[in-house]
Amino acid sequence: MRIGLLGFGVVGRGVYDLTASREDMTVAKVVCLEDVSLPDAEVTKNFQDVLKDDSIDTVIEAMGGLHPAYEFVKASIEAGKNIVTSNKALVATFYDELIPLAKEKGVCFRCTAAVGGGIGWLSELERARRMQTIEKVGGIMNGTCNYILDSMTRLGLGYDEALKQAQALGYAEANPTTDVEGIDTWHKVILSSNVAFGISLDTNTVPVAGISKITAADVENFTAHGLVCKLISTGKCAEGKVSAYVQPTLVKLGEPESAVPANFNLITLVGSASGRMSFYGQGAGRYPTAYNVVQDCADVLAGRGFYSPYGAKVAAENTDSMRYYVSGATDAWLEENAAERWNNAIITKPVTVEAMHAWRKENADAFIAAFAE
Amino acid sequence: MRIGLLGFGVVGRGVYDLTASREDMTVAKVVCLEDVSLPDAEVTKNFQDVLKDDSIDTVIEAMGGLHPAYEFVKASIEAGKNIVTSNKALVATFYDELIPLAKEKGVCFRCTAAVGGGIGWLSELERARRMQTIEKVGGIMNGTCNYILDSMTRLGLGYDEALKQAQALGYAEANPTTDVEGIDTWHKVILSSNVAFGISLDTNTVPVAGISKITAADVENFTAHGLVCKLISTGKCAEGKVSAYVQPTLVKLGEPESAVPANFNLITLVGSASGRMSFYGQGAGRYPTAYNVVQDCADVLAGRGFYSPYGAKVAAENTDSMRYYVSGATDAWLEENAAERWNNAIITKPVTVEAMHAWRKENADAFIAAFAE
Repeated sequence: MRIGLLGFGVVGRGVYDLTASREDMTVAKVVCLEDVSLPDAEVTKNFQDVLKDDSIDTVIEAMGGLHPAYEFVKASIEAGKNIVTSNKALVATFYDELIPLAKEKGVCFRCTAAVGGGIGWLSELERARRMQTIEKVGGIMNGTCNYILDSMTRLGLGYDEALKQAQALGYAEANPTTDVEGIDTWHKVILSSNVAFGISLDTNTVPVAGISKITAADVENFTAHGLVCKLISTGKCAEGKVSAYVQPTLVKLGEPESAVPANFNLITLVGSASGRMSFYGQGAGRYPTAYNVVQDCADVLAGRGFYSPYGAKVAAENTDSMRYYVSGATDAWLEENAAERWNNAIITKPVTVEAMHAWRKENADAFIAAFAE
Repeated sequence: MRIGLLGFGVVGRGVYDLTASREDMTVAKVVCLEDVSLPDAEVTKNFQDVLKDDSIDTVIEAMGGLHPAYEFVKASIEAGKNIVTSNKALVATFYDELIPLAKEKGVCFRCTAAVGGGIGWLSELERARRMQTIEKVGGIMNGTCNYILDSMTRLGLGYDEALKQAQALGYAEANPTTDVEGIDTWHKVILSSNVAFGISLDTNTVPVAGISKITAADVENFTAHGLVCKLISTGKCAEGKVSAYVQPTLVKLGEPESAVPANFNLITLVGSASGRMSFYGQGAGRYPTAYNVVQDCADVLAGRGFYSPYGAKVAAENTDSMRYYVSGATDAWLEENAAERWNNAIITKPVTVEAMHAWRKENADAFIAAFAE
């Protein structure tokens, strides 16, 4: 396998290192805007040098962002090259275009590192699907949020302080919006649901609530009630009805999710035969992520295409009811649905996921967290 | 694939059910000593009916026990049939004979359900090995022990009471020795180490301590110090030196192992690139186990042999030092190595795993538990 590697940042450099000693794959060209010189690969600033090189059969996209990653990946597929990427935003956003196109052109498309970093999550979903119906996917999919929530819970830090610490340690970016508002997790649960259920989720129907409005007072409330707050994603499919959402969730002490420390992930599937299976590992980082990119290359060599058949467009129906913890804002609707008060926070009666997220959209200062079923 | 299924107990029946609707595999014959009649398979009491049927290409061994499972599996390999088994005792005990024989005869040998039941642990080790060096394997591998320890910790039950409850729920057998003395876990960590490190462990050099001597007073001691006791296996390989052992281990509250409830397993690998990856699921039960047996059949169809190359015989060197909690017995050596006392129990200075297990062999009433590193 001769590889064109797009991007030479954290992941790209890791891929270069991990493939260096392998005989079955070679990074032939690296596209990178900085001046880098490498002993074993040609470095170019021009993507066309990869695209037009017929000796390159596989493109690894490790640039991140939507553009020009999308244009480069699309052009590569059209030129008959296999794709390996860790870019969850790209795959979740352009799923309807890229996955059918790869199939039409007969190339492999793998993106295992896009969900769970070092965890072989999508490849395990692929394996699980051969044998059973997947009923549920989701869990803790974002290390930045988990690090912040864990620090707030265990060290009693405030949100800003915990975020700063995460940034200092390299667990959060200078602009942390994508992580803390749950967008990263949202991309991951959409992609996971698509693979698990063989569908294409209408992304507009999947609501997301992040953690940026949580306060030390909220965490004190949770601790006093033996609860731990985690950002948890859910994708479910039962009798043709799909639901999917991302929200802070209150987990009882002693549940596996409650004990996930620092920047680790815990991702779960429930299958009709296997029951619950969970995967715990580092969801990010140079070598964990690069590890799964290189695993994908090995699967491309073994002729593995995408993880599941491309399926029909489906709108999520989030009509499940659950109780919510709400702080930071209130109004008549919320007061009507209040069942209890914890200091300044309201605990609602069971309300639908749909209704709660619609309310939150209108009340941008509110922090909401669901009680785990 | 035409299958000869040996045994029609919990796992065998599950395999029959899960394959019933598949087009790529058929259970053609079932060997079973009870009178069973099945719509789609011939039932026989005579193994020779499977062995001599050339249309049967794959034998699933779901009888358990060493004999006649060993003789049947060996004869099947010699007749050129692929083997799928969930029998950890069989594979760990006859590793040096069966694995090279399967290779010599060019047949597939899969035993994913032997470790972790529904968890795809050995197949994940196989995948991880393609890309990196495995440094460590192990964890909570026995649901019976975890159920007993969890009940003692959370409900304050005594050992006998917790065992009875586990038996009533079907989580422990009438004769629980293999589980509670750690033998089942011992087989699993030997097999996991063999696959992970590409070796054949000398089983005589792998010590095991079980949980049958633990008392409610021990658990009270642990709880008072924020610790949870779990039966944990360890296999490590560094610079050619292998260590391997099974022992009750004291884990801090908040560590992922501490939160594993009921009869669940949590099995971990540490890889040079991926870092820590853990797998959480039901380690036993009809459908979780049968699920991985059928997964193995799919891998046989894909031409997958064993998980790793058969490697050289290696003696474990258990020279790591750690502190131990010891109750129920004492003597001059133990008093010499005592650093602290918790009520009637002794906390030792760091002593080697080897020395501690040697002492325990001479003091059969003692309960020992290592402090997690």
